[in-house]
Amino acid sequence: MSILARSLEERLLEAILKAIGPAPIRLVFKNGNGISPPGVSPTATVMIPDRRTLWGIVLDPEVGLGDAYADGRIHIDGDLVALLEAVYEAAAGAPAYNSLYSRLASKWMDFQQSNSLRGSRHNIHRHYDIGNDFYKLWLDPQLVYTCAYFPTPSTSLEDAQIAKMDYVCRKLRLQSGETVIEAGCGWGALSLHMAREYGVLVKAYNISHEQIAFARERARQEGLSHQVEFVEDDYRNVTGKFDVFVSVGMLEHLGVDQYRGLGHIIHRSIGDSGRGFLHFIGRNYPTPLSRWIRKRIFPGACPPALREVADIFEPSNFSVLDVENLRLHYAKTLELWLDRFESSRDRVAAMYDPSFVRAWRLYLAGSIAAFRCGTLQLFQILFAGSRCQPGFWTRAPLYTQQVSAIEATEWTASTS
Amino acid sequence: MSILARSLEERLLEAILKAIGPAPIRLVFKNGNGISPPGVSPTATVMIPDRRTLWGIVLDPEVGLGDAYADGRIHIDGDLVALLEAVYEAAAGAPAYNSLYSRLASKWMDFQQSNSLRGSRHNIHRHYDIGNDFYKLWLDPQLVYTCAYFPTPSTSLEDAQIAKMDYVCRKLRLQSGETVIEAGCGWGALSLHMAREYGVLVKAYNISHEQIAFARERARQEGLSHQVEFVEDDYRNVTGKFDVFVSVGMLEHLGVDQYRGLGHIIHRSIGDSGRGFLHFIGRNYPTPLSRWIRKRIFPGACPPALREVADIFEPSNFSVLDVENLRLHYAKTLELWLDRFESSRDRVAAMYDPSFVRAWRLYLAGSIAAFRCGTLQLFQILFAGSRCQPGFWTRAPLYTQQVSAIEATEWTASTS
Repeated sequence: MSILARSLEERLLEAILKAIGPAPIRLVFKNGNGISPPGVSPTATVMIPDRRTLWGIVLDPEVGLGDAYADGRIHIDGDLVALLEAVYEAAAGAPAYNSLYSRLASKWMDFQQSNSLRGSRHNIHRHYDIGNDFYKLWLDPQLVYTCAYFPTPSTSLEDAQIAKMDYVCRKLRLQSGETVIEAGCGWGALSLHMAREYGVLVKAYNISHEQIAFARERARQEGLSHQVEFVEDDYRNVTGKFDVFVSVGMLEHLGVDQYRGLGHIIHRSIGDSGRGFLHFIGRNYPTPLSRWIRKRIFPGACPPALREVADIFEPSNFSVLDVENLRLHYAKTLELWLDRFESSRDRVAAMYDPSFVRAWRLYLAGSIAAFRCGTLQLFQILFAGSRCQPGFWTRAPLYTQQVSAIEATEWTASTS
Repeated sequence: MSILARSLEERLLEAILKAIGPAPIRLVFKNGNGISPPGVSPTATVMIPDRRTLWGIVLDPEVGLGDAYADGRIHIDGDLVALLEAVYEAAAGAPAYNSLYSRLASKWMDFQQSNSLRGSRHNIHRHYDIGNDFYKLWLDPQLVYTCAYFPTPSTSLEDAQIAKMDYVCRKLRLQSGETVIEAGCGWGALSLHMAREYGVLVKAYNISHEQIAFARERARQEGLSHQVEFVEDDYRNVTGKFDVFVSVGMLEHLGVDQYRGLGHIIHRSIGDSGRGFLHFIGRNYPTPLSRWIRKRIFPGACPPALREVADIFEPSNFSVLDVENLRLHYAKTLELWLDRFESSRDRVAAMYDPSFVRAWRLYLAGSIAAFRCGTLQLFQILFAGSRCQPGFWTRAPLYTQQVSAIEATEWTASTS
C-alpha cells in the first residue's frame, strides 16, 4: 500500500469515527493499523476488510455499517451490545444533528415506506408475516412481541409478559362486561387475556394475516371466540362504540402524520366517557428511526416523542392520566429474546440465511443498547375522555391490591 | 319596559348564554323574566340587576361575569361551585374556540403581564405578598399553597400536604447528602421537609419577599439553616451544580416562552446525571388561562399542556420517567381551602374588603369546578438526564415500602 493510499484510508477511518461520535471503539482496516479516539480504552474493535466496504461506510455510516455487518463484510472483536451501547452513549449527551444527506435519505425512505392504507399493509407484512414458526423460536409461548413488565428483575419472560398484560388491564381497571377495541393486536395474547381474566368483550384489529390467523385459532381453542372478534383490517376502518381503547406496540408503526387521524378514531370509538391506553416505543425528542432499521427490519416505523403523541389527545380533549417509562424493562425483554434467538440461530439460518441471522442479531442487540442508553424509550400512557372521571384515587391499589379488590364503580366515582 | 327594550334585553341574555355554552343555568334580568337552555332544569340562577352590568357581560362574558360577581353587582341563587361546574362541563366536550376579541384581549394581557425578570417579580408580588396573615387563615399550618396528595379521600389537609411533600421526595428517591435546587419554594415547607426528613442540602429560590422571609425564619427556628439556603432571587439566576432539581407550583407562573430557558437552567444545574421533578397546573391542550383570573388573581399565569412542557425536556435530552395526573386531589385540596376561607370570610373582609372576599371565593370555587371537570389538570412529572438510570425497577416500592427500605443505590443501578 502506498503512503498516499494509506493516508487516504486513515482519513476515511477518521471520518467514520467522527460521524458516529466520540465512542470508545477501534476501527481497523484490513487487520492492519487502525484508529480510536485519543485517551480512551476501546470497548470493541471493528475490522473493515476491503475498500468497497470502507467507502460504503464513509458515504453512509448508519446504513453502511449495518449492511456490512449483516452481509458479513465486517468483523467485530468484542461484545456487540457493549459496542453499540458505547456508540449510543457517546451520542446521548445532546440531540443529534443529522447531516443533510441523512435527512434527505430519511425523507426519501418516509416516502417509499409511507403508511397509507396500502403502504401500512406492505410494511407490516414485511416484518410480521415472515413466519410464525420463526417467532416461536425466541418469543414467549403466547408470542407477545412487545416490552414485558418484570415485577422483579428475575421474573421469567413468560411470567413478565403475563404480568405486562395484566398491568395494562389493571391500569385500565377493566370491569366485567365492558367492551374493548384493540388496535394492532399482534398474535392476540392481550385480547384473549382481557377476555379470559376480566370478562370483557373485545374487538381486535390487525393487518398481519399470519397473526390474525394464529389469534383466531387460539380463540377457538380456548373457547373465547364469542368474546373476542379478530378482524383482519386496518385500525383506520374501526367502527362501533366501546368503553375502552387499547393499543400495545402499534403507534411506532404509524408515522406521526397519522396521529390526529388516530385520535379522531379513538374519540369516535370511546367518546367523551371512555378511557384509553397506548403502549409504544418512543423518543426523548422528535427524530427519525435509524434508516438501517427501517430498511432491513421495520419499514415505515417511527417512534414518537411525547410532544408528537399530543396530536392524538388534544383535539378530543382527552386527559392524560398516567405516563410510565418502562425502557429498562424493554432492555431486559430484549436481552431474553436475544439469548433465545442465539440459541436458535442455526435453525433460523436454515429457515432463511446467515445474513438474516446477523441482521436480526444486530437489530436485537442494537435495541438492547438503545433502551439501556435512552436512545429509545418505552411509554405507557393511560388517558380518558373529558367526561370520564379518573378511575382511581391514587395508584396504590395497582401495587397493593388484587384486581378483584379494586372497586368496580371507581371509574364513575364522584370527586366530592 | 317597552316591548322593544324587553326584546333587546332578552336578546342580550341569549347572547350571554350562547357565549358561555349550553350550560344548565338560568339568566334573569332585574328579577324579571329570564332564559335558560331549552329542555334542561337549571342548576343555578344568575340575576343581573341593571343594564350597565348586562352590557358589561355581553361585551366580555368572561371578565364581565367575574367582575360583576366580585363587585356584588350580580346575585347567584344556587351553589356557586355547582354553577361553575355546569358551565365548565358544558364547554368540556371539545376544545374551545375563542372569539377574536377574546384572543386579542388575551394577547394584550400577555404583553401587560409579561414574565420578564421585572415582570415576574411584579406578578408574583401581586399574589403572594398580599400578607402571610391572610394565607394563614385558610392554608395548612405550613402554608403549602399547592395541590395536596390524599392517600385516602378522608385524609386531613395538614396530613395530605405532608403526604404530598413526602410523595415528591419518594418519587425522586432522595438520598441523604444529596444536593437539591428548588425553584419557586413558596413558604419553604418542601425545602425544609427534604432537609429534615431526607438529609439533603437544599438551595431554594423565590422572588416573593414575604415568603422568603417566612421560610428563613422557619429554617432558623428548626435549626435547619445550615442545610437549607433560601435565596430571594429569580430562578433564572440559579447557579451551581446539584443532584436534583425540583419545582412545585412554579411552572404555571412562567409563560410557555420561558420553558426552553428553564430547561437550559435545569440542565446547567443537574447535567446529564441528575434527575428532576415538576409539579404544576396544566391543560389538556394549549389555551390561555381565564382572563378574569389573570386580571384579578394570578397575573402572568399560564397552565401549560404537556406538549408545551416538552420544550423543557427535549433540548437537553431529558427522559420523562413518570407523569401522574392528580387533578381530583387538587379539587379536594381546594374544597378544604374554600371551607376554611368561608369560615374566615369576616376576618378577610376586615383585612381587605367585601369585593376581595367575593373575588377569592369565585377563584377558589372556579378552581374546584375546573379541576373536577378537567378544564384544569395537575401534573407531576419525574424526569432524568441522559446518563441517569431510572431510579427504580417498578413503581411498587413507592406504595409498598417505607422510604428507608428503598435501596440507596438504585439511581445508579445497572440494567443488566
